[in-house]
Amino acid sequence: MQMAKANRFITLTTDFGLADCFVGVMKGVIHTINPDATIIDISHEIGSQDISSASFLFGSAYSYFPEGTIHVVVVDPGVGSKRRPIAVETEKFYFVAPDNGVLTYAIAREKIIKSVGLTNPAYFLSEVSDTFHGRDIFAPVSAHLSLGVPIELMGVEIDNLVEISLPNPEIGQGWLKGHVIHIDKFGNLITDISHNLFKSVVSCSRFVIRLADIEIDRISQSYADVPVGKPLAIFDSFGNLEIALNCDSAEKVLGVKKGDIVNISILA
Amino acid sequence: MQMAKANRFITLTTDFGLADCFVGVMKGVIHTINPDATIIDISHEIGSQDISSASFLFGSAYSYFPEGTIHVVVVDPGVGSKRRPIAVETEKFYFVAPDNGVLTYAIAREKIIKSVGLTNPAYFLSEVSDTFHGRDIFAPVSAHLSLGVPIELMGVEIDNLVEISLPNPEIGQGWLKGHVIHIDKFGNLITDISHNLFKSVVSCSRFVIRLADIEIDRISQSYADVPVGKPLAIFDSFGNLEIALNCDSAEKVLGVKKGDIVNISILA
Amino acid sequence: MQMAKANRFITLTTDFGLADCFVGVMKGVIHTINPDATIIDISHEIGSQDISSASFLFGSAYSYFPEGTIHVVVVDPGVGSKRRPIAVETEKFYFVAPDNGVLTYAIAREKIIKSVGLTNPAYFLSEVSDTFHGRDIFAPVSAHLSLGVPIELMGVEIDNLVEISLPNPEIGQGWLKGHVIHIDKFGNLITDISHNLFKSVVSCSRFVIRLADIEIDRISQSYADVPVGKPLAIFDSFGNLEIALNCDSAEKVLGVKKGDIVNISILA
Repeated sequence: MQMAKANRFITLTTDFGLADCFVGVMKGVIHTINPDATIIDISHEIGSQDISSASFLFGSAYSYFPEGTIHVVVVDPGVGSKRRPIAVETEKFYFVAPDNGVLTYAIAREKIIKSVGLTNPAYFLSEVSDTFHGRDIFAPVSAHLSLGVPIELMGVEIDNLVEISLPNPEIGQGWLKGHVIHIDKFGNLITDISHNLFKSVVSCSRFVIRLADIEIDRISQSYADVPVGKPLAIFDSFGNLEIALNCDSAEKVLGVKKGDIVNISILA
Repeated sequence: MQMAKANRFITLTTDFGLADCFVGVMKGVIHTINPDATIIDISHEIGSQDISSASFLFGSAYSYFPEGTIHVVVVDPGVGSKRRPIAVETEKFYFVAPDNGVLTYAIAREKIIKSVGLTNPAYFLSEVSDTFHGRDIFAPVSAHLSLGVPIELMGVEIDNLVEISLPNPEIGQGWLKGHVIHIDKFGNLITDISHNLFKSVVSCSRFVIRLADIEIDRISQSYADVPVGKPLAIFDSFGNLEIALNCDSAEKVLGVKKGDIVNISILA
Repeated sequence: MQMAKANRFITLTTDFGLADCFVGVMKGVIHTINPDATIIDISHEIGSQDISSASFLFGSAYSYFPEGTIHVVVVDPGVGSKRRPIAVETEKFYFVAPDNGVLTYAIAREKIIKSVGLTNPAYFLSEVSDTFHGRDIFAPVSAHLSLGVPIELMGVEIDNLVEISLPNPEIGQGWLKGHVIHIDKFGNLITDISHNLFKSVVSCSRFVIRLADIEIDRISQSYADVPVGKPLAIFDSFGNLEIALNCDSAEKVLGVKKGDIVNISILA
């Protein structure tokens, strides 16, 4: 058995919020095991128990971290029930999470080397509660991984990871239908229509994007391409089609919610 | 006089929020004095001037950090008045805070070695304001402690620390009455009834827990023990009785507030 | 050309909020380039696109960090348009930001050595998006600066930095008129009247401060100088006149908003 290379970077993505002490306690547990870990917050403001949002948000972020980073994702409505805690080793990263699909988006993009169900209590806190596996299982496991403990010592190999179905755009004759899958802090509306999909379907045709009561017939290069307060379509920094208002909140002004449909008509 | 062992871990718990620059500035001050400090946030979203909440939340969190950690707690409605700034050395940790009871919950669990009123300006910023001792006193003192400066150089020994009275459950013939002392980000209701107290009073009897208009007659092992949206009682990860809804907010659905009473009837 | 001294401290000030993954991704990019960087958050809760607030808040905070710190400020409504990304080297610090005036307050207090428009893509991510220069330009530039890359390698020297006009108090015969320029987490009202200005204009005269429907005729030394809930005037920890209520929110109780006017009458 080969000793994995120690890697001191650990990221945390949770729905714990920052008002309680949950996140701080996870960091305390990690540093108690590995004082030299460097812990980076991705987000702790995932909607409570919103596995799908977590999967998308984390999936957009994880690849920007150093190779070998240990990514911990804890959105865990089933904590204490029979859902498995897991660790996944891929070519570039480690992932530690409950096996509820929260890793779906990321795992689909990575080459898995090995997945284990975390069953070895030697790498947990000595007492494991029924309600806070972030502290009792996921934090200590990530800390031990960061010290170079090989994943295969931590549990039994598994291969049937739970996946969730992510929203997917529909393609028809002359149309493309997507969904708002995330609304960011600026009120920008992120859709599930990727730049690649858009290019392959719309190509060089003229088109009209319809959402709420607005119509947009071009892709902008920057928010400032349109006057302040006006709507635009742009490919966001993670490659998804985004509907925004220049210097205003499309969410508030247009009254759009997560899950709303974006229609694209492709003109002859 | 013995030189204390340097310890690079410093935690921060405040009511400063994250929108202003207060927390960042405290970190800047600490790193200016000790570039090698590792600073960990416990929470900065304590209710403004809510000493009792801070005491409870911090008291639940502090013990999960490495031995020797320097814990800074700044919830300080009396800043600039005559309340004393203090540092407390215990067998396992250091605590730095205003002497207003914010350490009550933690100190009660630790063995105090020495407490000092912080009076030596050599360990403060050169100018001390009337409104931000977090920056001017508590941050620099914690940084000097992290460099190994012994606590006795920082002020005069004291022994009459201010304590606050924490809510305490009442026990009667056939009943137990507790209080909601914290509501977490998920809307879970944390009470002051500890697992030990519950076991000693309720033992193996049947019981009914009443809060708002719900009744619960068993302790669950996980949120998923009841259907989604249904209420349950569970011992939380810090050992307190918690009333929750599976995948929903007990706070919002039941309309419960901090301080509300939880009644337990013990059946024959 | 002299190699700058490497400095591992990088601060981040943005309007990105903490719910999305923007801030975490910037940190991932920085650590990928310089694993040994120490990254400190000043604030990520600047009002969306509020350059003036960012300039004030950052300007109050930046000087409390170690000499050589690299300060990154990203409030960037013009991202992707023709506004320049810049880096500024001063005697004590580096600043990295869009050239939109967000550095105005800080730069006015520092001695500039050199400013460059960031034009050398060797120090950017390999792909630069139109909407997230925080990730693609500002984070990698700051990481390379922290490794000791001299600023002059990163672009072309410029000298006409964009500045914004900050609110400024007006002085008349027997009066002084200021503005609420910031409201902190406690609801305290921070004005643009500095301690120095107040001293030079009001001197030892009696005075009345008027705001909303309250009048204050003295400067307090601490919040606790007045009964709980009562208004007071105090010089805040950054040297500005502040109107506050002891243990309550002046913002909420008085109904005051950013930009509101504070009148001071100087009595004979």
